[in-house]
Amino acid sequence: MNEKQLAAEKSIEFIKSGMILGLGTGSTVYFLVKKLAELINDGLSVKCVSTSRQTTELANSLGINIFEFNQVNYIDLTIDGADEVDENLNGIKGGGGALLFEKIAASNSKQIIWIVDSKKFVKTLGKFPLPVEVVQYGYKSLLNKFIDLAYKPVLRKKDNDIYLTDSGNYIIDLHLNEIQNPFELEMKIKMLPGVVEVGLFNNIASVVIIGRGESTQIIKRK
Amino acid sequence: MNEKQLAAEKSIEFIKSGMILGLGTGSTVYFLVKKLAELINDGLSVKCVSTSRQTTELANSLGINIFEFNQVNYIDLTIDGADEVDENLNGIKGGGGALLFEKIAASNSKQIIWIVDSKKFVKTLGKFPLPVEVVQYGYKSLLNKFIDLAYKPVLRKKDNDIYLTDSGNYIIDLHLNEIQNPFELEMKIKMLPGVVEVGLFNNIASVVIIGRGESTQIIKRK
Repeated sequence: MNEKQLAAEKSIEFIKSGMILGLGTGSTVYFLVKKLAELINDGLSVKCVSTSRQTTELANSLGINIFEFNQVNYIDLTIDGADEVDENLNGIKGGGGALLFEKIAASNSKQIIWIVDSKKFVKTLGKFPLPVEVVQYGYKSLLNKFIDLAYKPVLRKKDNDIYLTDSGNYIIDLHLNEIQNPFELEMKIKMLPGVVEVGLFNNIASVVIIGRGESTQIIKRK
Repeated sequence: MNEKQLAAEKSIEFIKSGMILGLGTGSTVYFLVKKLAELINDGLSVKCVSTSRQTTELANSLGINIFEFNQVNYIDLTIDGADEVDENLNGIKGGGGALLFEKIAASNSKQIIWIVDSKKFVKTLGKFPLPVEVVQYGYKSLLNKFIDLAYKPVLRKKDNDIYLTDSGNYIIDLHLNEIQNPFELEMKIKMLPGVVEVGLFNNIASVVIIGRGESTQIIKRK
């Protein structure tokens, strides 16, 4: 079993019957959704909401029924991946492009668990490019603003087209290398008109499960 | 001439040939666009960008060519209306639903003039409901959050349907009555995941032209 799968399957232990469950997005969550489908098939009763079209399609293909987030209004437990996590359990998310819905789901979850492989756990955030979701109108002037700020912005592309989020926005990835103060940076970027969301998830995860070699390490927020 | 038209026609004096001009939205801007069409017809050379479908359609119908904002990247002068303006030239905008593009245009404008009738000029902001543009995903939990905060939120409707912005988002109008600290409030609301933009325009207008009775009053930011 690889580290992603180890972390994903460990997170299953936190799921209780009757829960409203938030499902994240990405290659680690893939293993979670597959395992969850088995458990639901064996009788586990949970109500699931999804943070992306990708996860909804995967879940549906495995027979898991997905509810609209606006039908439930809160989530007992969200299990999601992350692109980077630091020792304070702050993280970068959005490599898969679902940061907006993931952050909204997280802000309405009683408990949040991130499942990651050991390479994602870092001392300082920023090696992974920070995704910023922006509206199409005026995105070029935001690109220029980020260049002026030396944030090394790159407009995300897919197959030579500009990448579109599930909300029809663009993503600008900031190549910062090192983020000294994630709280300050999140506020500075989100306050810019045209910015819909920032991939900095500070003070959000309550538990991080790291797949490490052949086992898992669990870190809880102090 | 009514106060709106007086303010709109006074603002024409600030327009210089060769400018890139941002056109706002609303019933006062209507008079500006009409007058501008006459001047362009008489030989005034300006490049116009628009902050809403409504203004683009009005301008086009009068023969004004509208450029994409992403084609120009900055604006020399934006002339826009406002729903309320206080003595510090902070304001509430978004009654017409175009707050997002208006705020992006404003944040890329060298100079910003607001044109209003005298009823819009107030001592304290907040009698006019504060519009907040939110993504559809999870809007109900934002409504609940605003209820908890005693912001008296109302989801904007149009002909019994939920009102949709030009970006496909919803608007929640907050009936605050009195806004003591517009800067603090803007930050508090915009930082919430799911909030795309807030209709508080603080420190943005450089000049406000008020139609008052039969004449106009001009207030410049100190």
